[in-house]
Amino acid sequence: MKKKFRLHVFPTPEDAEAAFYEAFEHGDLDAMMSVWAESDDIVCIHPMAPRLQGREAVMDSWRQIFAGEADSVRMKITDTRCFQDELLSIHIVHEHFVVPGEAIQHAPLVVTNIYQLTEKGWRMILHHASPSPDTPPLSPDRTPTHLH
Amino acid sequence: MKKKFRLHVFPTPEDAEAAFYEAFEHGDLDAMMSVWAESDDIVCIHPMAPRLQGREAVMDSWRQIFAGEADSVRMKITDTRCFQDELLSIHIVHEHFVVPGEAIQHAPLVVTNIYQLTEKGWRMILHHASPSPDTPPLSPDRTPTHLH
Repeated sequence: MKKKFRLHVFPTPEDAEAAFYEAFEHGDLDAMMSVWAESDDIVCIHPMAPRLQGREAVMDSWRQIFAGEADSVRMKITDTRCFQDELLSIHIVHEHFVVPGEAIQHAPLVVTNIYQLTEKGWRMILHHASPSPDTPPLSPDRTPTHLH
Repeated sequence: MKKKFRLHVFPTPEDAEAAFYEAFEHGDLDAMMSVWAESDDIVCIHPMAPRLQGREAVMDSWRQIFAGEADSVRMKITDTRCFQDELLSIHIVHEHFVVPGEAIQHAPLVVTNIYQLTEKGWRMILHHASPSPDTPPLSPDRTPTHLH
């Protein structure tokens, strides 16, 4: 267990963000949860989904999302804007989902990611993702699975 | 001009947030822009709208929103969660729009507001608002005016 944590200490917010998207692409729940802070205050907002709070709710949502992924997804992160001070780092990005073999460029999701410096390095405390005007329409019964 | 700025120094992030929603309710563009930081890095994301950056783009969006308001709107802010350190303050809230005389409770918007301590007190640097699953459906031609 100790070894595992040693592997997952992120010395910069950028390291934590890279690990977040790597876990996302590979549908790796353990890796994903090692990016999130060990706190009941963490908040995750998937597109058109209710606000989730706490590790259990956040983990459940990623488990569902990853269960719905047939293969790894490919993501491209662009237009990163950052605000940072000693303990908090805010990254505002566009998330593009790359569909292999598909030429169509879907509109990106608009995302705010926030990281906090903890005793175990930088960890995610907020992921707020939402559709932009040209994101394909979302039917009411769509779960986050279909969006990520 | 000096007097104006003196009136708009927010000693806490909570003061800035209260002023933001007061300006929003009254459709007061000057008051709204006095809450935002004087920086080209500020970011505003209205529901289902593209990410806007810089004071000019942000001000234009609020001007459009306020032009579409026949009367003042009433808002109720609930479920506030905060993360704060010395220079940054993150408020995650639900925004409920109260329609006078209407009993129906619309689903709230899910919102992340971020404030930064500047030389002129706490100022807003990010407003990221997005629909939740039960928010009334948004037609593609809807501008932010209809949402706020």
